[in-house]
Amino acid sequence: MEDTKILLKESEIPTSWYNIQADMPTPVKPPLSPVTGKPATPEELGAIFPEEIIKQEVSTERFIEIPEEVQKLYRLWRPSPVYRAHRLEKALDTPAGIYFKYEGVSPAGSHKLNTAIPQAYYNKKQGIRRLATETGAGQWGTALSMACKFFDMECSVYMVKVSYEQKPYRRSIMQLFGAEVFASPTDKTDAGRAVLKEHPDSLGSLGIAISEAVEDAVKNSDTNYALGSVLNHVVLHQTVIGLEAKKQMEKAGYYPDVVIACSGGGSNFGGIAMPFVHDKIKDGKKTRIIAAEPAACPSLTKGKFTYDYGDVAHLTPKMMMYTLGSDFVPPGIHAGGLRYHGASPIQSQLLHDELIEAVAYDQQDIFEAAMLFAQNEGIVPAPESAHAIKAAIDEALKAKEAGEKKTILFNLSGHGYFDMASYDNYLSGKLQNSSLSDDVLQETLSKLQ
Amino acid sequence: MEDTKILLKESEIPTSWYNIQADMPTPVKPPLSPVTGKPATPEELGAIFPEEIIKQEVSTERFIEIPEEVQKLYRLWRPSPVYRAHRLEKALDTPAGIYFKYEGVSPAGSHKLNTAIPQAYYNKKQGIRRLATETGAGQWGTALSMACKFFDMECSVYMVKVSYEQKPYRRSIMQLFGAEVFASPTDKTDAGRAVLKEHPDSLGSLGIAISEAVEDAVKNSDTNYALGSVLNHVVLHQTVIGLEAKKQMEKAGYYPDVVIACSGGGSNFGGIAMPFVHDKIKDGKKTRIIAAEPAACPSLTKGKFTYDYGDVAHLTPKMMMYTLGSDFVPPGIHAGGLRYHGASPIQSQLLHDELIEAVAYDQQDIFEAAMLFAQNEGIVPAPESAHAIKAAIDEALKAKEAGEKKTILFNLSGHGYFDMASYDNYLSGKLQNSSLSDDVLQETLSKLQ
Repeated sequence: MEDTKILLKESEIPTSWYNIQADMPTPVKPPLSPVTGKPATPEELGAIFPEEIIKQEVSTERFIEIPEEVQKLYRLWRPSPVYRAHRLEKALDTPAGIYFKYEGVSPAGSHKLNTAIPQAYYNKKQGIRRLATETGAGQWGTALSMACKFFDMECSVYMVKVSYEQKPYRRSIMQLFGAEVFASPTDKTDAGRAVLKEHPDSLGSLGIAISEAVEDAVKNSDTNYALGSVLNHVVLHQTVIGLEAKKQMEKAGYYPDVVIACSGGGSNFGGIAMPFVHDKIKDGKKTRIIAAEPAACPSLTKGKFTYDYGDVAHLTPKMMMYTLGSDFVPPGIHAGGLRYHGASPIQSQLLHDELIEAVAYDQQDIFEAAMLFAQNEGIVPAPESAHAIKAAIDEALKAKEAGEKKTILFNLSGHGYFDMASYDNYLSGKLQNSSLSDDVLQETLSKLQ
Repeated sequence: MEDTKILLKESEIPTSWYNIQADMPTPVKPPLSPVTGKPATPEELGAIFPEEIIKQEVSTERFIEIPEEVQKLYRLWRPSPVYRAHRLEKALDTPAGIYFKYEGVSPAGSHKLNTAIPQAYYNKKQGIRRLATETGAGQWGTALSMACKFFDMECSVYMVKVSYEQKPYRRSIMQLFGAEVFASPTDKTDAGRAVLKEHPDSLGSLGIAISEAVEDAVKNSDTNYALGSVLNHVVLHQTVIGLEAKKQMEKAGYYPDVVIACSGGGSNFGGIAMPFVHDKIKDGKKTRIIAAEPAACPSLTKGKFTYDYGDVAHLTPKMMMYTLGSDFVPPGIHAGGLRYHGASPIQSQLLHDELIEAVAYDQQDIFEAAMLFAQNEGIVPAPESAHAIKAAIDEALKAKEAGEKKTILFNLSGHGYFDMASYDNYLSGKLQNSSLSDDVLQETLSKLQ
């Protein structure tokens, strides 16, 4: 009987992360200080990040060793399986082979724990007592709460207010892991108070919550800030996904023709993609590498490649990235984890250099894809991850039309057990088209230099 | 670096289930027809069950082959991992080795899919179009909905009304898999209408919902009934858990001194325990095998070993089992899946013969155990499964006191991602002691012969 899953032993978990900065044809542009407008110095970044993280952010070493304590904790769920989606292939009647890497087996429910653990570790090592962060959909907040508990640290999570109210169980799970969770904007920070003064009923946004968490870290010397996506060190930590997946595809005897992941800030995309981007750059592989984003927040497909802030209050450095503008507030789609105005600088540079592609989907289409996937494979995907499923299905149908035996690999970044209200919405026919109008798009882009 | 998980290959998934009925010192007593009071005939059972299931119910073959289609579907998630709970051991500072088999990796979130798939398969094979069932906490309804979708069958779930209202997302996930879900008692069945006539505001119970589902199956020739626990064939299907676990413990190099599972109807308990009960009977092993039940519904520790009905309306056969009485309605604890008045006849007979033990816990204690487990191992357990955790912790602490290097194996039957409201309740200090008073216990037992 043919295997459904391609499994690795614990001894096959990578012992180093892969750093694409060693191999990029065009290096990532440096972040600019929000104060001086010049490249941010390690001292400036040191106010909110530990030394090891700052080093990783700019490193051009090809492989960076994973600390033993981090490796041990990875073993709580890694290596994650690669599945062959036999039943989905049959339902689509496609000659393509569809494989997916399943990061939802993490106890936090998504890939976010891959970076939460090393971030907590490096901060702990430097004597930091508490981490402050933001969370939108709640995946990142859950992962960081868990990681802090593992290292006996405190964790403060600024949760976008609309999520705080709509997803009470996400808040509960963070509290279960000992975090304190605030509905952002709060009256605890200058950034939060400024928003509340103008908009007392503000439902918050990731950009606001980031400002609050950064301010908290800057003002408290025993506290650092942790970000769950976008930055180079986050992409680095996530490469365990792609490194494992490459070994697994080798075992299966296929090299993927297409590699796909959903994309908001770009961390799970970077995680699965970078080891394959390496092969394109170094070995001349022709793999297509696709980032799937929401049409409601189309930074990669419709944004501008320019320097922009990471947050609303402009406390973060400016980064060179595809962006819709740091004060753009995307419509309230169900894939809350993809509602970020920018994309990771690494991914942005690679897109600019045409080493990767991007595609955008409306939420109606991604839920349809999610349903087809769930009913065949059993796993209920997070709405974020469903963007990757939609792209994989599209590619499988194209292969069918062309009569080609393509091999498609996508990353299923997390499960959807905390997103059943969104599925309810879809099943009851209440889901709305969420694509941005050209007017809104032009308006937000016009604010960028 | 030491492995955290003990993994098997897909080719190591058992190809046969183990049938304890081949080896029991005292055979299980036959079910009695609710109409004649005599042993129920295959014809009577044929009104709601397919032929293969009825054969399995009474079979004394030691091994029963798992159909190939079922084996293929098992590969969607099996073999499930056995974890060594290193971090929990350290937190308890115990010399004991704590291992757990994790059934929460199933896409339905619990062990229930192990029997839902073969039940759907045998019914489909016999030309049945639709399955009717009940669900309390929702684990079983989720699993059967998924299994029916896999075999292109319809599924009707009578969900205990209090759960239907308190756990809307459990309803959503069943609907996502195409099931129709009714809040029981309904006005669709005689049994439901009879309850509503007397108690228009009834919040339902498992006993009522079973009556409704059985009636639905009896009255519709294209529809059969499926039960998620209690019966012999369900325990049979669940033995994949214990068969895998035995192989995994062999790989680890330890034979367990203690085997533990939570127990409501007894299916996950039977699943992990039976292969080890075999070794006690056949090889003279001294393993202690412990069923952990809620003090709110203590059928094994406080019930009577007698013939009793499986449901409120007395539509099911009478079974020889430990029971609190078929009209006993347990307090509304958070471990809804353990709120059943009886226990599986196999387990009951083994308890009566002192081959297994039972222990009961208050819900305050099981949530405390669940928190300690989650904060160390990362996995949030279902409140049902937390009963097994509590028993494992107690055994580990006893080993510490005695300075003994015991090996403890427990079954973690499911995850708690749909139970965050219960954790909220615990975290906010609102959880109430749920143990039965002696008065209530005496009153319900006095109604039994």
